[in-house]
Amino acid sequence: MRRVRFRDPAGMVRTGEWHGDAVSFADSTYDPDEVDVLAPCEPSKIVCIGLNYADHAEETGMDIPDRPMLFLKPPNTVAAHGDTVTLPAGKEQVDWEAELGVVVGEQCRNVDAADAEDVIAGYTVVCDISNRDDQRQEQNWVRGKAFDGGAPMGPVVADPDHLPDDAAISLRVNGDEKQSSDITQLIFSVPQLIEEISTYMTLEPGDVISTGTPSGVGGLEDGDDVEVEVEGVETLSFTVEQD
Amino acid sequence: MRRVRFRDPAGMVRTGEWHGDAVSFADSTYDPDEVDVLAPCEPSKIVCIGLNYADHAEETGMDIPDRPMLFLKPPNTVAAHGDTVTLPAGKEQVDWEAELGVVVGEQCRNVDAADAEDVIAGYTVVCDISNRDDQRQEQNWVRGKAFDGGAPMGPVVADPDHLPDDAAISLRVNGDEKQSSDITQLIFSVPQLIEEISTYMTLEPGDVISTGTPSGVGGLEDGDDVEVEVEGVETLSFTVEQD
Repeated sequence: MRRVRFRDPAGMVRTGEWHGDAVSFADSTYDPDEVDVLAPCEPSKIVCIGLNYADHAEETGMDIPDRPMLFLKPPNTVAAHGDTVTLPAGKEQVDWEAELGVVVGEQCRNVDAADAEDVIAGYTVVCDISNRDDQRQEQNWVRGKAFDGGAPMGPVVADPDHLPDDAAISLRVNGDEKQSSDITQLIFSVPQLIEEISTYMTLEPGDVISTGTPSGVGGLEDGDDVEVEVEGVETLSFTVEQD
Repeated sequence: MRRVRFRDPAGMVRTGEWHGDAVSFADSTYDPDEVDVLAPCEPSKIVCIGLNYADHAEETGMDIPDRPMLFLKPPNTVAAHGDTVTLPAGKEQVDWEAELGVVVGEQCRNVDAADAEDVIAGYTVVCDISNRDDQRQEQNWVRGKAFDGGAPMGPVVADPDHLPDDAAISLRVNGDEKQSSDITQLIFSVPQLIEEISTYMTLEPGDVISTGTPSGVGGLEDGDDVEVEVEGVETLSFTVEQD
């Protein structure tokens, strides 16, 4: 199943089922254009991984880390499928980054990699929008990564069995493919990430681990339409605007 | 007024008034030992400031930044007055850091420093517990700062008029004074911090800005009793244990 959170025409927030050309809840079925698709979960934190694809580490000129590089996006970064994200004002370079998102299904701590599947609710699609102007100047990437709307995600949480082991991940801007890779290229696997993160912090239901981006990142411009696709999950679409 | 969140003897969560030797809600008054004091607010994020006292910047050997150094603590870091915080396992150096916390009172964005007072609910006391073993090795201070219980805070949110312009801030470990300064030593003022942070992100009611620590940081040990006092606010007490 692929679950979708949406506001129905009467204004009720529902968690229903995504069928691609329709969304449903209980006895009601809607055209996706009739409803307001919301972010697929309500994370208390998004734990992001830097440099987790070898090809992207190479394009940044940075060494492959010997353990996962972690950074945080707080709840104000969440944006939904179909949203228009306003980029931080006055920046030269704000980049797209296509990512596979892991949605946590239960409160957990100190999870062994071998047991990590037990705490995964499913997978979503994330765009880790990155304000390079500030990121390059900061010890901690707060202005660079934690600005409002910097983590569009969705449209669904797909059950784990929908994700192929070699799922393709790609990103298109105005229809042109900019990133194309697959998750066999991940340096640290999803179970390894869950073990490492949960050694330090409790994960809550709805928290998201965004697993890093492949090569091909580049700069967004006013009015760009962005599509991020993870095979077996769905395609996340959003638009950006410059303030 | 100084507000305190607590669980009363019947198990109800209340936001009442702190009188030092008593807490009250509606017609009921309790001995503070009768109730379970909770964290004074429920932040969606804690935005912390590094190197915001000149004396602490000097002791770390780091340059004074030309704009606030920001980092994040997510909700899993919150601990309350009276709690026992379990330090991250297997670390050599986990330090105390006494801080003045600003509690946000309303949802806001793009706040001018001149208007910052309008969005402040009040002040609390924070200890920014810092795992130096990992912090020194990380680009972003996640293992170093965002571990469970790494932000004890409370016991109250004091109305802004309780905070003197030159409020003393101090920290004692097992009764010995380790830090002693006052908020006139802040490099970036509270209004400047609110303006800078809200340029990038929406602040929510209950969010906390932790304004940095003065000199005198040092390492916690199993069983230490810690008291952090901000003049006009209150004294936050907690204990630490090693796993």
